Amino acid sequence: MPVAISATLAANEALDHRRRAGLPVLPLAFGEAGLPVLPALERELATAAGRGAYGPVAGSTDLRNAAAGYWRRRGLPADPGLIVAGPGSKPLLYGLLLAIGGGVVVPGPSWVSYAAQTRLMGAEPIFVPTPPGEGGVPDPEALREAVTIERAAGRKVRCLVVTLPDNPTGTLARPETVRRVCEVARELDLIIIADQIYRDLVFDPGTDYPCPSRYAPERTVITTALSKNLALGGWRIGVALLPEALRALRDRLAGVASEIWSSTSGPTQQAAAYAFAEPPEVVERIATSRRLHETVVKAMTERFTAAGARVARPEGGFYLYPDFEDLRDRLGVHTSAELSALLLDRYGVGVLPGSAFGEPPEALRLRVATSLLYGETDEQRYAALNAQDPAGLPWIAASLDRATEVLTDLTAGLGSAACDERERVAVIA
Amino acid sequence: MPVAISATLAANEALDHRRRAGLPVLPLAFGEAGLPVLPALERELATAAGRGAYGPVAGSTDLRNAAAGYWRRRGLPADPGLIVAGPGSKPLLYGLLLAIGGGVVVPGPSWVSYAAQTRLMGAEPIFVPTPPGEGGVPDPEALREAVTIERAAGRKVRCLVVTLPDNPTGTLARPETVRRVCEVARELDLIIIADQIYRDLVFDPGTDYPCPSRYAPERTVITTALSKNLALGGWRIGVALLPEALRALRDRLAGVASEIWSSTSGPTQQAAAYAFAEPPEVVERIATSRRLHETVVKAMTERFTAAGARVARPEGGFYLYPDFEDLRDRLGVHTSAELSALLLDRYGVGVLPGSAFGEPPEALRLRVATSLLYGETDEQRYAALNAQDPAGLPWIAASLDRATEVLTDLTAGLGSAACDERERVAVIA
Repeated sequence: MPVAISATLAANEALDHRRRAGLPVLPLAFGEAGLPVLPALERELATAAGRGAYGPVAGSTDLRNAAAGYWRRRGLPADPGLIVAGPGSKPLLYGLLLAIGGGVVVPGPSWVSYAAQTRLMGAEPIFVPTPPGEGGVPDPEALREAVTIERAAGRKVRCLVVTLPDNPTGTLARPETVRRVCEVARELDLIIIADQIYRDLVFDPGTDYPCPSRYAPERTVITTALSKNLALGGWRIGVALLPEALRALRDRLAGVASEIWSSTSGPTQQAAAYAFAEPPEVVERIATSRRLHETVVKAMTERFTAAGARVARPEGGFYLYPDFEDLRDRLGVHTSAELSALLLDRYGVGVLPGSAFGEPPEALRLRVATSLLYGETDEQRYAALNAQDPAGLPWIAASLDRATEVLTDLTAGLGSAACDERERVAVIA
Repeated sequence: MPVAISATLAANEALDHRRRAGLPVLPLAFGEAGLPVLPALERELATAAGRGAYGPVAGSTDLRNAAAGYWRRRGLPADPGLIVAGPGSKPLLYGLLLAIGGGVVVPGPSWVSYAAQTRLMGAEPIFVPTPPGEGGVPDPEALREAVTIERAAGRKVRCLVVTLPDNPTGTLARPETVRRVCEVARELDLIIIADQIYRDLVFDPGTDYPCPSRYAPERTVITTALSKNLALGGWRIGVALLPEALRALRDRLAGVASEIWSSTSGPTQQAAAYAFAEPPEVVERIATSRRLHETVVKAMTERFTAAGARVARPEGGFYLYPDFEDLRDRLGVHTSAELSALLLDRYGVGVLPGSAFGEPPEALRLRVATSLLYGETDEQRYAALNAQDPAGLPWIAASLDRATEVLTDLTAGLGSAACDERERVAVIA
């Protein structure tokens, strides 16, 4: 089983165990936007429940038109005939990799599934380090070098995946960097798959969003979904936009889609069409969610920074990616996997190790997701959405304070309280 | 693009063109159960619309418990921990093939996607002919021989797919045949994937259903879905049941599922749990649908038989698989693709050629699906469901009569009326 899944499952089990034992837990492992479904979207899904018939493989005309509008409002000349829907952007990414074939360049670190999907289709991911402070894209010169070496060894390399803004680092590459990445991609004739699932969650409204389509429209495929901006991960709906120059790839993708998933849930497509049309309540909900994510992820970043970890300032989404290198001597661990296991076992803190994202095992980096701290009930989550100061809400403040407590204890060496706790779990187990 | 998809798309386009030109069409190409969604299931989906959170990869506990109950009522010792849900049984089949790896034996003919999925994962399907009159399973001796030859050539062969009852033939293999297939599979150490999506649509209530689990429980994986029995193809929900002996495969399947589709739509899972629990209205709807399918597919079979085609009597589902070999001299075509093109171009009859199902090109067999004849509106479809004699309803009778008209003209050689029609289409185009 892929490392991130087993890590997430192990974290979940351990956290459940501690919860039952009445011990504190801090669920920071799972990248789920823990917010309620917008009522207007619930209504749309309910209205569309009678759609039991198979629909077109690429998605309904309504959904593709709405998605085209969504992209046009963001400056992209989107053709509904070049849009393909799927049950999430994940299957679309897999379908694209399969339809393109050959080796895949992914940033190191990058979201776990790019590499896992590449391996599933029988190829090896090529990890290329990101520039300092800019996650989600490979360093342009390192990209050129890596692909040249691969090709000299006789291996086909056909595409590059970028994430803007990024998971796991929460950062957004700068336009100049994306421009250079695109230039190298053109030089190397690589297709660029731009995963923009966190695009609507970029915090600063004045951001010059660096869409690769601006620099290399002929080779850029964009994927997105409603899982993060509207917290609909469980609905499973995503869309991909291809350029005219890649129409043949669109047809191959539709062929793959037809054989793997046939079509996307009809009721969900109708609700998604409503969302992609961006009526006022959808725009408002996304804006409200964005503010909440920003406030909490930045507050958590401060806690990690205060504890001595180095953390690039998150620019979108709900992740931070602290680096514990400066604290290595005080931690008594050698790998990110050991560090995340220590946090889980000793403190009930679930995070993912950098190694799950393709980092070298010894790099002491962790992915911390703050999006499951908004509450246990819809009432709490709505309160978080509507709060002027969500970080001041008792349940969110408690999680932030628990993080400080754990980090203080962790970086001070083995505290006696932590040892007691560990024994207590063992006794109860 | 796979042949069946392009054939279906071409058929749909041609039929639309003729419809707009006011010419008669007969849509017999697409295997969709053209019936309305049961209101109780619409309600369940609507109720579950708020489920926006990611769920477990393998499916919710409720859904897996309900599916286990469904299988237990059919005599199978189903463990919810060995059930994996997916967005349709199609992705589950693909995930199984990928998780098993190696070559795949499929019956010749068999549903288009088994072979297409095998090719997508980089292997070649091994078509083994079915016994006469028993579609969906390979002839046991031919199976042994084919796998032995493949393995002698150094190729890995690890699994066999069977369909009970079958698409495209509409027949159901006999228990004795399935028993022998299972024996050979055990001898050859093949995993058996039993696609039972049409199981609830077996016409004769007294049928001794030949589940491979009865003969080779340790190696049988069962897949099913709600697309056919409850006409929910557009909802995308399926389940797979693995035996205890294949628990490692269950884990690999969950790993593949996690990386390709993550989880199955939460609202759909809740509605599916309701359906798999088989409350009275679900049982009744399936029974009513089954009677309708039986009546219409048998009526259509009579029309093809009367025209001189040989047709095995359908035993479940909504397909017939006429063989025009005896009429070859009068048809002026050499392949099933030519025959289906002729039916489409000259008469507006959409069917799929046997070649799409892996048959030799020159075998003059066609797959005819009768499930889109129930009406254009929900009102007509409910009338069809509720009719004592659905074949006597004007719109269904008209389709049956049109089939007779076309077959009469076809088997009489080029009729002048047909020629006129063809010219008219050309003029309007």
